[in-house]
Amino acid sequence: MSIQDLLGIEIPIIQAPMAGVQSSALAIAVSNAGGLGSLPCGMLSVEAIRKEMAAIKAQTKRPFNVNFFCHTKPEPNSEHEAAWRATLSPYYEEYGIDLSTIAGGAGRLPFSPEAADVLAEFRPAVVSFHYGLPEQGLLDQVRKWGAKILSTATTVEEARWLEAHGVDAIIAQGLEAGGHRGVFLLDDLNTQIGTFALLPQIVRAVNIPVIAAGGIADANGVSAALSLGAAGVQIGTAYLLCPEATTSAVHRAAIKSDSAIFTALTNLFSGRPARGIANRLMKELGPMSPVAPAFPLASAALAPLRAEAERLGSGDFSPLWAGQNVSGCKEIPAADLTLELAKGANGAH
Amino acid sequence: MSIQDLLGIEIPIIQAPMAGVQSSALAIAVSNAGGLGSLPCGMLSVEAIRKEMAAIKAQTKRPFNVNFFCHTKPEPNSEHEAAWRATLSPYYEEYGIDLSTIAGGAGRLPFSPEAADVLAEFRPAVVSFHYGLPEQGLLDQVRKWGAKILSTATTVEEARWLEAHGVDAIIAQGLEAGGHRGVFLLDDLNTQIGTFALLPQIVRAVNIPVIAAGGIADANGVSAALSLGAAGVQIGTAYLLCPEATTSAVHRAAIKSDSAIFTALTNLFSGRPARGIANRLMKELGPMSPVAPAFPLASAALAPLRAEAERLGSGDFSPLWAGQNVSGCKEIPAADLTLELAKGANGAH
Repeated sequence: MSIQDLLGIEIPIIQAPMAGVQSSALAIAVSNAGGLGSLPCGMLSVEAIRKEMAAIKAQTKRPFNVNFFCHTKPEPNSEHEAAWRATLSPYYEEYGIDLSTIAGGAGRLPFSPEAADVLAEFRPAVVSFHYGLPEQGLLDQVRKWGAKILSTATTVEEARWLEAHGVDAIIAQGLEAGGHRGVFLLDDLNTQIGTFALLPQIVRAVNIPVIAAGGIADANGVSAALSLGAAGVQIGTAYLLCPEATTSAVHRAAIKSDSAIFTALTNLFSGRPARGIANRLMKELGPMSPVAPAFPLASAALAPLRAEAERLGSGDFSPLWAGQNVSGCKEIPAADLTLELAKGANGAH
Repeated sequence: MSIQDLLGIEIPIIQAPMAGVQSSALAIAVSNAGGLGSLPCGMLSVEAIRKEMAAIKAQTKRPFNVNFFCHTKPEPNSEHEAAWRATLSPYYEEYGIDLSTIAGGAGRLPFSPEAADVLAEFRPAVVSFHYGLPEQGLLDQVRKWGAKILSTATTVEEARWLEAHGVDAIIAQGLEAGGHRGVFLLDDLNTQIGTFALLPQIVRAVNIPVIAAGGIADANGVSAALSLGAAGVQIGTAYLLCPEATTSAVHRAAIKSDSAIFTALTNLFSGRPARGIANRLMKELGPMSPVAPAFPLASAALAPLRAEAERLGSGDFSPLWAGQNVSGCKEIPAADLTLELAKGANGAH
């Protein structure tokens, strides 16, 4: 079955859910263009999810995807948190930030029964997960209205695990991809490989459709991914400059700058490895650091630094998520970009 | 002009030169199959180069490629060397190796006037370089008999530099590739990106043919690379199990094992980053280490360890060069593999 038939879409282009740089507007534009728009819910409250889903339902009759993290919430560890804040303290001082004003707590929430209840009100056609899958009971709830389930694999082993656990399609996330790596079985980053190596190996290992992600920036990239056996593609970075994205000014400037060629995996912003454009924080503390608290706890202590730096026009403390190929980023409406990308899939049904 | 017309070959498949795991036999087989066989000369004496070139000339009338490093020879630094040997001393002890028996000196030589003189006797159709280009006088010598010049780029900037310096085609080496990274302009490994990201950006940046390398393992991979704008492909890892390759027993075993999914860039074996299957040395000392002497000096102190470990059937101290995609490695004649790969280029002329 083609990915179009499986998901009920016209063209095999999935807009990657990108928490923090988009809301429903981008998803609506892509779905209305015939692709699959995605709403990242990992940083939204249940109320915000409801509001965004209502907005999507009001503006498109097409299928769309809602995306969730499904990590296990870590126990807050006051020692780790103190070490993290101590590491950041020279920056607090530099920016005149009062440590006592910093809120604790997680900025990213895993999929929950409450979220599943909200979804049930809207019955989205597709639900995708990052970091494996939620517990079976929650998955069953999502299955009730016939939603198709996608999840991300960063290794052949993860792909086999996801297939065995009943997903409908697998997103093969090559090392080029921006944002959080979906790695969930092994911590060893040496397992993380490029799209050219990962995609065909996953295609060969499983019997369900595989969606390619990582480094795909234009129609030729779409075509190449299909040559390697992908049933469709998931594209994030290329959409970051679209007017429908909520990408911040410092983030947009970084993407358009020469420094966008220097990306790295960093755990500093959340506690888990994610690819972003190298900035001051990454250069001075990492990009990977054992001091960063467990996902998603690292972000809280950075929030005031990020806010103050951005207020002054600096992305020194912001996650400047981007993949290794920003060459497809265009300041054009997301629908136009989607149709340009779709040219690489002509004849692929 | 197609890469076939440029290089005088039938199919756009270049067998990657792989110093240490092949001699003329592999090059001859690939050239006779219609691709471009390559002889790696970086670890050969001038006399050995002459002998190998004579063997090639005797067994094929087709074009072939000779490959050289063109690094600047480092000044031996006794302090660095002592620190390196001290770091390795627990292993010497473990294997009962007498430090005083270890020869110094470089295992890899840059392209030289003497090598150019030998080439002139045989007039190879193609000469490729790693680490940029040799000085202009040496290049001019090679040009005299009309050899086409190739060199490796790992970034868009390096590709532009090579085009400006007159190469005939550029090998775009994605991060997936096995063996030494050709990086020569910037040391920052964050500039090293996957084939999916690197290849199309280089294709867009230059006006000469681009040859894709890194993660290409089968006909679909060839087809995908051509979709991304490549004029041809360079493939190394897939040939490592061919009978014509001189890949060692421990190296072959590692490629066929599950551990082949764990590759990393390491500077331990030579002093410059190269991708190999993670083994004991890489896990215990690196994979990257500031203690390793400058390229190519790191290899000398490892040679007796490697020899002794291999004698005992272990690859713990051997460079197990491999790319991130060993799925195309087959124990079949190199000619057959070349023709299988060529199916991905059907219609690409």
